Amino acid sequence: MAVNKDLLKLIQQKIHFILVGTSHSGNIGAAARAMKNMGINKLMLVAPKEFPHKKAFFRAKAATDVLENATIHKTLSEAVADFRLVVGTSARNRKVPWPIVNPREVTEEVISFCQTDLDKIAIVFGREDRGLTNEELGLCNLHVYIPSSEEYPSLNLSQAVQIIAYEIRLKALTQEKKLRKQKWDVPLAKNGEIEKLIEHFEELMQEIEFYEVDNPRQLLKRVRRFFKRTRLDHMEANIFRGVMAAIQKKLKR
Amino acid sequence: MAVNKDLLKLIQQKIHFILVGTSHSGNIGAAARAMKNMGINKLMLVAPKEFPHKKAFFRAKAATDVLENATIHKTLSEAVADFRLVVGTSARNRKVPWPIVNPREVTEEVISFCQTDLDKIAIVFGREDRGLTNEELGLCNLHVYIPSSEEYPSLNLSQAVQIIAYEIRLKALTQEKKLRKQKWDVPLAKNGEIEKLIEHFEELMQEIEFYEVDNPRQLLKRVRRFFKRTRLDHMEANIFRGVMAAIQKKLKR
Repeated sequence: MAVNKDLLKLIQQKIHFILVGTSHSGNIGAAARAMKNMGINKLMLVAPKEFPHKKAFFRAKAATDVLENATIHKTLSEAVADFRLVVGTSARNRKVPWPIVNPREVTEEVISFCQTDLDKIAIVFGREDRGLTNEELGLCNLHVYIPSSEEYPSLNLSQAVQIIAYEIRLKALTQEKKLRKQKWDVPLAKNGEIEKLIEHFEELMQEIEFYEVDNPRQLLKRVRRFFKRTRLDHMEANIFRGVMAAIQKKLKR
Repeated sequence: MAVNKDLLKLIQQKIHFILVGTSHSGNIGAAARAMKNMGINKLMLVAPKEFPHKKAFFRAKAATDVLENATIHKTLSEAVADFRLVVGTSARNRKVPWPIVNPREVTEEVISFCQTDLDKIAIVFGREDRGLTNEELGLCNLHVYIPSSEEYPSLNLSQAVQIIAYEIRLKALTQEKKLRKQKWDVPLAKNGEIEKLIEHFEELMQEIEFYEVDNPRQLLKRVRRFFKRTRLDHMEANIFRGVMAAIQKKLKR
């Protein structure tokens, strides 16, 4: 796939994930890994309960560099002071509604921001138990809500990070002008090849007197439909032709 | 947003997540939570290293019911025998490419399957360190690849589960009520039927000594891929079985 490398680079430069008041340092590590897996490396921590801590480094696996480069801040307000787009993750319906979008919708905005000459973008994640305070949500331009089941709506912090990071990466990768199709190893069979294959198959069915066991017209129709709808590649068609020829040779002996 | 409750119910009934050979029971718990957060409850475990285990229940938080209702299986082949759509998660580029799509694309297919009267769908996740074996991937109709950074491509298992589950939920929530896939006249063949068909085909190829004319391993792989990717319906599978049986009978005379 022809990836838009410039856009991936812009994402790496501009997008910052901010974790506010995280209690469990293991979650910070898991979040760092989830970010790096998606090509996002800039982590900011606001008043973490315990950091640095070995649990964070353990859970980060090969993303310890993200932790080592993380910056620590006293308040969210201080942390986002020079950001131009701040997105807050929100679980709640607030009394005074804020512009609230799903992760796919927010990603549209984030990516289009990345492509302007404006600078940094922050995506803010709240505490494990209580999320962001109303005051913190009030610092954000936009709220994103991860749609979850009413039965059990509360996601693990690192899972919320993973979903947003994934959306950003997928959006960047599919942003391409033209969508590419998957590469296959062999070209599709030509229509004429398939017609010959079907003919050959029918011939073989006659030789083995297969018609007796079914209504022939229905059967032929189904065989034809199968070989048409399945879009055989050239080599698959050849394999079937070869197998049938070998059967016929064997039968004649 | 007007939610399509019927579709959410269908998802809960039909979609099964299968974890194969999981080493860390904590990951099983985190996966259960990630599933339940997105309204998916059916978990199947193939040869887990340690289960049940208190670490799984600890990480599952309020999703312990998903663990309690999980079924345990010896092999993936046994687990998916009566599934009609099996999706495998894959990290690798294989020599003989299988149809491979991203999580968004696979979700299209999964949701449209949910809306037909056909039954169960399996989404299969491999081992933490090595994913699924080639043999296990060969049991799947479709492979899904989570696009990740080249710098650090390996996601935590529960994060991969989260991404797929999230995509399914978001798709369901944003799906229009209209628009349906074409109705087919015959249900798709079950995975076990297709496996027997492939076995039968290989047996026949041996009987006619077809192996001599090609590299047998590549050939078998291509035959397997063909019968997996083409999604035979039940009657098509029966026709092929019948034709092969008739050939064998004739050859024996």
